[in-house]
Amino acid sequence: MGNTFGQLFRITTFGESHGGGVGVVIDGCPPQIEISETEIQCELDRRRPGQSKITTQRKEEDRCEILSGVFDGKTLGTPIGILVRNKDARPEDYAAMAKTFRPSHADFTYEAKYGIRNWQGGGRASARETIGRVAAGALARKILRTLYPKIEIVGYVSAIHELSAKVDRSKIKVAEVDSSIVRCPDKATAKKMISLIETTRADGNSLGGIIECVVRNGPVGLGEPVFDKLEADLAKAMLSLPATKGFEIGSGFSATRMRGSEHNDAFEMRGGKVRTASNYSGGIQGGISNGEEIYFRVAFKPTATIAREQKTVTSSREQTKLAARGRHDPCVLPRAVPMVEAMAALVLCDHALRQRAIRLPER
Amino acid sequence: MGNTFGQLFRITTFGESHGGGVGVVIDGCPPQIEISETEIQCELDRRRPGQSKITTQRKEEDRCEILSGVFDGKTLGTPIGILVRNKDARPEDYAAMAKTFRPSHADFTYEAKYGIRNWQGGGRASARETIGRVAAGALARKILRTLYPKIEIVGYVSAIHELSAKVDRSKIKVAEVDSSIVRCPDKATAKKMISLIETTRADGNSLGGIIECVVRNGPVGLGEPVFDKLEADLAKAMLSLPATKGFEIGSGFSATRMRGSEHNDAFEMRGGKVRTASNYSGGIQGGISNGEEIYFRVAFKPTATIAREQKTVTSSREQTKLAARGRHDPCVLPRAVPMVEAMAALVLCDHALRQRAIRLPER
Amino acid sequence: MGNTFGQLFRITTFGESHGGGVGVVIDGCPPQIEISETEIQCELDRRRPGQSKITTQRKEEDRCEILSGVFDGKTLGTPIGILVRNKDARPEDYAAMAKTFRPSHADFTYEAKYGIRNWQGGGRASARETIGRVAAGALARKILRTLYPKIEIVGYVSAIHELSAKVDRSKIKVAEVDSSIVRCPDKATAKKMISLIETTRADGNSLGGIIECVVRNGPVGLGEPVFDKLEADLAKAMLSLPATKGFEIGSGFSATRMRGSEHNDAFEMRGGKVRTASNYSGGIQGGISNGEEIYFRVAFKPTATIAREQKTVTSSREQTKLAARGRHDPCVLPRAVPMVEAMAALVLCDHALRQRAIRLPER
Amino acid sequence: MGNTFGQLFRITTFGESHGGGVGVVIDGCPPQIEISETEIQCELDRRRPGQSKITTQRKEEDRCEILSGVFDGKTLGTPIGILVRNKDARPEDYAAMAKTFRPSHADFTYEAKYGIRNWQGGGRASARETIGRVAAGALARKILRTLYPKIEIVGYVSAIHELSAKVDRSKIKVAEVDSSIVRCPDKATAKKMISLIETTRADGNSLGGIIECVVRNGPVGLGEPVFDKLEADLAKAMLSLPATKGFEIGSGFSATRMRGSEHNDAFEMRGGKVRTASNYSGGIQGGISNGEEIYFRVAFKPTATIAREQKTVTSSREQTKLAARGRHDPCVLPRAVPMVEAMAALVLCDHALRQRAIRLPER
Repeated sequence: MGNTFGQLFRITTFGESHGGGVGVVIDGCPPQIEISETEIQCELDRRRPGQSKITTQRKEEDRCEILSGVFDGKTLGTPIGILVRNKDARPEDYAAMAKTFRPSHADFTYEAKYGIRNWQGGGRASARETIGRVAAGALARKILRTLYPKIEIVGYVSAIHELSAKVDRSKIKVAEVDSSIVRCPDKATAKKMISLIETTRADGNSLGGIIECVVRNGPVGLGEPVFDKLEADLAKAMLSLPATKGFEIGSGFSATRMRGSEHNDAFEMRGGKVRTASNYSGGIQGGISNGEEIYFRVAFKPTATIAREQKTVTSSREQTKLAARGRHDPCVLPRAVPMVEAMAALVLCDHALRQRAIRLPER
Repeated sequence: MGNTFGQLFRITTFGESHGGGVGVVIDGCPPQIEISETEIQCELDRRRPGQSKITTQRKEEDRCEILSGVFDGKTLGTPIGILVRNKDARPEDYAAMAKTFRPSHADFTYEAKYGIRNWQGGGRASARETIGRVAAGALARKILRTLYPKIEIVGYVSAIHELSAKVDRSKIKVAEVDSSIVRCPDKATAKKMISLIETTRADGNSLGGIIECVVRNGPVGLGEPVFDKLEADLAKAMLSLPATKGFEIGSGFSATRMRGSEHNDAFEMRGGKVRTASNYSGGIQGGISNGEEIYFRVAFKPTATIAREQKTVTSSREQTKLAARGRHDPCVLPRAVPMVEAMAALVLCDHALRQRAIRLPER
Repeated sequence: MGNTFGQLFRITTFGESHGGGVGVVIDGCPPQIEISETEIQCELDRRRPGQSKITTQRKEEDRCEILSGVFDGKTLGTPIGILVRNKDARPEDYAAMAKTFRPSHADFTYEAKYGIRNWQGGGRASARETIGRVAAGALARKILRTLYPKIEIVGYVSAIHELSAKVDRSKIKVAEVDSSIVRCPDKATAKKMISLIETTRADGNSLGGIIECVVRNGPVGLGEPVFDKLEADLAKAMLSLPATKGFEIGSGFSATRMRGSEHNDAFEMRGGKVRTASNYSGGIQGGISNGEEIYFRVAFKPTATIAREQKTVTSSREQTKLAARGRHDPCVLPRAVPMVEAMAALVLCDHALRQRAIRLPER
Repeated sequence: MGNTFGQLFRITTFGESHGGGVGVVIDGCPPQIEISETEIQCELDRRRPGQSKITTQRKEEDRCEILSGVFDGKTLGTPIGILVRNKDARPEDYAAMAKTFRPSHADFTYEAKYGIRNWQGGGRASARETIGRVAAGALARKILRTLYPKIEIVGYVSAIHELSAKVDRSKIKVAEVDSSIVRCPDKATAKKMISLIETTRADGNSLGGIIECVVRNGPVGLGEPVFDKLEADLAKAMLSLPATKGFEIGSGFSATRMRGSEHNDAFEMRGGKVRTASNYSGGIQGGISNGEEIYFRVAFKPTATIAREQKTVTSSREQTKLAARGRHDPCVLPRAVPMVEAMAALVLCDHALRQRAIRLPER
């Protein structure tokens, strides 16, 4: 019972990596929003497997079909069902996994929790599950732009392994990010990252890294203390993505080594508005957006699936060894950028609608 | 509408730092759990102001009253209301803040969001709000111990500023932690931390740090993919605490600099059970607990309230300067340990009940 | 886990009939709504025991205290805690009930469900629980009047036993209703009802009846198909009140004996608006309000507590007989009118906020 | 945001009468439940159009496809997506309705609420939407039978217009009900009903009626006071079905004309269990099931779509007249029986899981 996200703009995803398909039902979408399969496909193509030489070679077109909730190119206010069929399934690649728990995968825990599991591919634990999130994120972005025409949500790969990029958070654009197959806009570092990914894959190994995401020109006032603080919902959103291990908002862990006099963001008047001189808060104070840039970082572990042989046990509790077959990403980060952006858009859209509900018109 | 946490074991908190009091309503508590005001008070005393020389000197007894839901020392299955009155309120200390936005506090964002704010103390954004969480956490722990008699949840201060403690995560006990007023069980480092806190306070400044928390002897199978993964709910729980800036589960950000072959936790049979040889996963795989230690780290920023003069603006949009009056903690970490433990207990208890609901008896 | 009602304007009630008190936490209340304890008290006084000779003589002042969420007479947007202490408790009246299941009360089912029960009075099943609903309803009305200045919600006793009142649904006002102690505005029938209640009480017996409620001048467009249709949420709201057995919207059960050509409400233009010529729909079509009067009827059973001796069993499974002691209402309907109105206000207020969330401004 | 039903066993439906299809996502289903498309199809066939001469002649095979959540014939514990394609759509039949509000339909209110509507058929307001409910209901029944092997849920047509059936509530079986095309097991009355439906259809008119539903051999202890009382959730479930106008539990409105001494259900020991001598409570006391038969009645209005000419207005606010084209049921009751049963199963299944969560094992 954990497949729904959001309070007002509410998505429910379904589907395993192998089987009829994956998808999402979006409930609570405002009516009269223009949306097309093409726009959603655009975002899906950014997360699609096989998009470059450094991603998995699994061939999925990931064509989406809008089943309901859209009429004459506009949302109806009714639930929007979106379906993507599974196509390039090779369950035979996974036969060995039927009885073996892949290390640092969810095979063992799903079996322990449910007493049963779909051993074809990752089943529900596959990153393929995020298709529904990305599709819904495309719509969330559209709504956000309707409410705040200048809003931008830009994610990018900030680090892979020990390679860290230099990126101007305040200027970076999605197009720049997407011009790099590794989705790192610092070209010199990107080149090194690509090379590292290729040698690591050749070596039967995998890599992790960090995605940073910035939201610019968003509104003041989003976030619902005390539990649904904006950073709390962002943290949950990001940690619900496969392979994530950490989340930082604004200064993050570096704040722990600063003094209050350094870390506090002094208020000042700028352009007729209350602004902060610095932005260690990351655009959120007391759980509510303050109009500054919202930025956060998400840690991704190295892909668990590796070609190297590893020790593990079988479902009948015997020691064994396993070397992965099946196609997989040596580093998930390039494809995870649209997932991070989508989750950010979903959180912001939900909170934007929540804020609309409580601010009554002046009398 | 963000003051409820949990799906089945569900708490709703209320109250500002000044006014009638703060409290919580706990709905979904199983019946027949033995609980007393004394047990709850025990936990509240761990977060109480004025408990040592390094915390705020605000004098609040924080005596809790159980208003409902408990009869003859046992829970009834009905909602449990718990109230703690505010006592040592000195709203006059805050008069200056009525018209001035304290830097890196929630004054500005609350006013921007709601168009109104209680300027006496932190209002709803005060850490005093966490009383309800800690009270509910005491009950959650009780339930967890009923279900898993050996379960332990232990938080401790792992770092303050640049001082990092050495702690044996697998052995540390609550009593050891509480024997130190800074709640750091590494005695040598604790001494330095206390000294640093005292000089920093004298200097009109403040400090941040890291709390680490470990859950031992918990069950396999808790967590509800894909959105309510156990680490996702823990991340949200922690980032909903005041002053938090980051969250790491298991290897956390350090995972980003590891290769899959290093990071993967090999399965092995140990003591007749499926266990992992290492535990970079932090006890959670695919969003579900695997029976290993669950451990995570939470970053706290330096207290925003400092005695030093800072630049800011007034609510009538004029530049001004502000030096804090009122009593406050130079470093929130010692008092935040029971908050972190409480939130962890709430998440685990909620997921324990959720798991009970779906595993039907064998036929 | 069933003590929260509403999606955006969300109330959580707590409290048993004997113990620390009863109350409510209201989350999601828009900020800047003027509200005072006096206004809430007004509504509570309408449901208070001992208000007339035909109600229970239990003496409870039912003074409410606002614990949080209101500052300088206005809502803050933070949760509003309201507490009413229990005072005139005579648990000794209930000693016999500790081991005996009162017929058609909740004693047996609470014990069966929870394995424990508070046998002092009705515990959580007491109508005293509705205090929190009525307090929250007072605030909901205030918000509704802010949004729709002419909106009126008027409940009245439409029947007691076989005595049916004639009431002009389109004109009746709260003041008229309240001018009768039985809350029936048809004076001749009211007189007979009072007399019947008095003789029935003297006879050690009790009576049921019907409350009708009308909402006038409400907006078009409230209700969220397909599950949260306005009439569905009203039905749930009413059937969640103690002693209720049925609900009808508009034509109700009489619709089952009509043909489509009679029952359909023809549309027509009137006063420049789309209106219906008749209103068998009860102001709701397809689950959404159409701007006509919303009216519905709620069936209340005769009070279960009667002075006459009845057959029953003890908690140790022995046959016994029981004659109620304790004070109680021979007919709950007069005091149930404000409960019905409160629940209607809560449903409408919640849906009003939900509708605000999804209708974006025109561009 | 009203398309999700249930707390733990949670369904989200989607789809309009014309477009890609209708369906449901079921989240929170326990794992290892055997279920097949055939079993679901069985229930869908009971609500399918064109099943007899007295239903609409729209030809829809309503073949369901399980998209996810089932593996090797068993549920996985992951969300179960079920899709039914729309096939026999004749949107041209509805062209006239694009600009005309059909009386007592949802055309006007959808347009008023959302500012847009799918005018092809009923859109989301079509009874076709209930396909997802019935599919999910089939699974809910399966789970209920796993938990309570003897449980039975039987709905039947109890009245059409002024024709009332005599049915022995305690003995009636689904097979008997389904042996009649009007789903009324009183054969003599059924014959009259069928004849009345046929003449009414020929007359361009429509009929309403009452469905009664009984749950036998269910457990004691289901229902979550105070808002999620079992009868409250049943009431909401039923009033969320298209065309419903009223709900009664147990004695219902007839209780209003009884005295406490008549209406109270005396407890007695029977078969070693606490039982009630009568069952005016309808199997629920204090919102919790007491183990007796749960029975309730649902009022359905006459179908709004009739062939006769009716007055109405256009979306451009002009008076006009309308005579329905398109195929439709002259009386919805025969096809509504499986819908009522499905909603009852969903409510009971959800509450069964909720009860499992809170009753901890004895120590």
